[in-house]
Amino acid sequence: MNQFWCEYAWLGGDTATPGVLLGVDGDRIVSVDIDQPCPSSAVRLDGLTVPGLVNAHSHAFHRALRGHTQLGVGSFWTWREQMYAAAERLDPDSYHRLARAVFGEMVLAGITTVAEFHYLHHAPGGVRYSDANAMGEAIVAAASDAGIRLTLLDTCYLQGGIDRRGNIVPLTPLQERFSDGDVDAWVRRADALSSFSGATTRIGAAVHSVRAVGPADIVVVAEWAGAQSAPLHAHVSEQPAENEQCIAAHHLTPTGVLAEQGALGERFTAVHATHLSGVDVGLLGDAGCTCCLCPTTERDLADGIGAARALRDAGARLAVGSDSHAVIDLFEEARAIELDERLASLIRGHHDAPSLLSAATLGGARSAGWSDAGVLSVGALADFTTISFGSVRMAGVDAGSALEMAVFAASAADVRHVVVGGTQVVRDHAHVSIDVVAELAAAIAELRQPRVDR
Amino acid sequence: MNQFWCEYAWLGGDTATPGVLLGVDGDRIVSVDIDQPCPSSAVRLDGLTVPGLVNAHSHAFHRALRGHTQLGVGSFWTWREQMYAAAERLDPDSYHRLARAVFGEMVLAGITTVAEFHYLHHAPGGVRYSDANAMGEAIVAAASDAGIRLTLLDTCYLQGGIDRRGNIVPLTPLQERFSDGDVDAWVRRADALSSFSGATTRIGAAVHSVRAVGPADIVVVAEWAGAQSAPLHAHVSEQPAENEQCIAAHHLTPTGVLAEQGALGERFTAVHATHLSGVDVGLLGDAGCTCCLCPTTERDLADGIGAARALRDAGARLAVGSDSHAVIDLFEEARAIELDERLASLIRGHHDAPSLLSAATLGGARSAGWSDAGVLSVGALADFTTISFGSVRMAGVDAGSALEMAVFAASAADVRHVVVGGTQVVRDHAHVSIDVVAELAAAIAELRQPRVDR
Repeated sequence: MNQFWCEYAWLGGDTATPGVLLGVDGDRIVSVDIDQPCPSSAVRLDGLTVPGLVNAHSHAFHRALRGHTQLGVGSFWTWREQMYAAAERLDPDSYHRLARAVFGEMVLAGITTVAEFHYLHHAPGGVRYSDANAMGEAIVAAASDAGIRLTLLDTCYLQGGIDRRGNIVPLTPLQERFSDGDVDAWVRRADALSSFSGATTRIGAAVHSVRAVGPADIVVVAEWAGAQSAPLHAHVSEQPAENEQCIAAHHLTPTGVLAEQGALGERFTAVHATHLSGVDVGLLGDAGCTCCLCPTTERDLADGIGAARALRDAGARLAVGSDSHAVIDLFEEARAIELDERLASLIRGHHDAPSLLSAATLGGARSAGWSDAGVLSVGALADFTTISFGSVRMAGVDAGSALEMAVFAASAADVRHVVVGGTQVVRDHAHVSIDVVAELAAAIAELRQPRVDR
Repeated sequence: MNQFWCEYAWLGGDTATPGVLLGVDGDRIVSVDIDQPCPSSAVRLDGLTVPGLVNAHSHAFHRALRGHTQLGVGSFWTWREQMYAAAERLDPDSYHRLARAVFGEMVLAGITTVAEFHYLHHAPGGVRYSDANAMGEAIVAAASDAGIRLTLLDTCYLQGGIDRRGNIVPLTPLQERFSDGDVDAWVRRADALSSFSGATTRIGAAVHSVRAVGPADIVVVAEWAGAQSAPLHAHVSEQPAENEQCIAAHHLTPTGVLAEQGALGERFTAVHATHLSGVDVGLLGDAGCTCCLCPTTERDLADGIGAARALRDAGARLAVGSDSHAVIDLFEEARAIELDERLASLIRGHHDAPSLLSAATLGGARSAGWSDAGVLSVGALADFTTISFGSVRMAGVDAGSALEMAVFAASAADVRHVVVGGTQVVRDHAHVSIDVVAELAAAIAELRQPRVDR
């Protein structure tokens, strides 16, 4: 058994608890004792230790776009063109190298679990790799290398969109990589991928969006997830245009379509959930869904500000994701839920620090299908993150303000130690096995090189 | 003469320039040579060097509130109660200790000049210190200790507000510290403070707001600033309530009142400028005013999102400020101008990276009255800041994306070196003379101790 001593730890209440000794056996917490001095045999975690942060929505390869999509001006849709161009260059080997570095950046930011929304299944033009899951397996290997817990959301993406008359828009050549051709082929590939489940890996499902998957196919994906008791995610109402097209085609909002096809429920996560009707909010709340907000991406893509407080009041859970990785900082994501809602409402105090921290930990863990993570309690997975009090950002912190300082003032740079499944992955701000900066630089430079066609 | 070699430097165009050798004599840049190798005698600045960041709006003592004002819920006005309670405990000695540490945090964040909006003039209850400028002098000394260039905006604050019938609301007991009693007494004190101008210190003026200074007194403050060719700042339309009260009392918006009293012009900075009419935007633009946005504070206080693009289009300059110091990170402030405008408009691309970086440097320098700072050019003050490429946040940066990465992805933690007036103040992420974390912690703890009345 290993012991970790936390100067302060968040055990779920309104304030931090001093002197918390966590006993860990294998990958589980087996004891939690408070008001303890630090035993000489324990690993000492100075600062505030919280349950490991959970990044409930990620597209790892978008990290290669950071900065570059800010050149000049553009819309969500021109941003998507740049994103597709980056996607076009990835193969299983290069994706493994990139994702391993990106997951390394996440771990350094205190993220112990990532839900990767994965739709880059096939080779350019839709050509099948000899192993149909070569790309997904590259992500599984990357997460293992980086020491991060992974939920791989195998994403169904079958069509280019729907127009306002309800006609299906065909896939563009760039989108061919995303499609299995039909939903039965998606099921076969997802079934095969499920064998990669393990101690730190789970396989879930995703409907890319109501643009990319028709109603009848949504049923099939939802039933597949239900049969596996696996998480089911979908992009929902990120942009007004999606709503307009969906209503014109189906006479229902995206949430309405998903509800009618049986997708909603406690295993369902609506990603973004930005432009919802009151009825949508009620549907998501009544079904006990999670809504995963990605505020830094929603700022970046000019999506708008979602109704997070109304969703919580209706019964939905919240989670956060760094999505496009314009930045990877779940403290910024968590506080942005509250701060952006202040901007929209001109009122303070929709979400307090404990509830925002809960969204970034327990809410994300449930969204990603790890019901035994996201808390520091006996029997839970031993995933935790320690925020240093040693920077200028946190200077002035005291026991009574530790949660508020962590949520409203800390940055990813303040993460000092990270433990995943009982194993220390970050020690004193450094990854124990990966040179993350060098690997990120190399993987991104490789994607930017002029391509030589061979 | 000293030489500083910049791996990349921003010389004002759309991209970074490699291999820039800056010659510095005294506190000035005397040569700028590009495409140079690093001479062995030069100080080597790896990463991207930009003109020193300028924090154009600061209330240093608000730093003591960080985190604590996030407990529970509240409004701008309840936040103000907490802020007043902190102010109540400061005296010249404790303010010197706190401000020196806060300015140290700023320098570590790459800020080379701060405009301190100073209204905490007198002892509790309005009792005069034997030296009427003891508090202002404490700020001057603090800035000198921290190595930051200072514009001390001596702020006129004479009344508690105006009600909807145009009646003056008297000062509360807590506000008595802010008031000189009448505007002539403010002039006498500001005159005396002006003797503290020096190589790194300028004295400017501020009208706290149209709430706190009546129209006739605004004229006097504006004339004082004009006679000194000094900067003049005012809080303008931060909250809708201010507009409503002002329109009810004066039949003009706050900008309209300031315009009518002759306050607007190229030396004038409207701080916040959040809730403006179209006429206000035109007045500020036509007069060539600066608008200082403080987006992280405006998020925190639920102020709302200002019309930054419309202000620029109308002819106004932009600057940024960390104001209440909920965080001190001018990269976050700069990108928030664009990102929050995306949230309000659902459109990307109002302000590109060079224009945002210009707001955080040249725009701020002009607002603070340092017309010879904010650029890397011959004859300018030798104030500059180097952003490291060595963190996960910046990994993947290249010459073509350096400005975009700095503005949209860097954090204050990425500032590696800072030079103010030719003297290196931050080296390898550390302040050369102050233990900023320890001093911040001590100064804030001192303010939080139960007070013993003696």
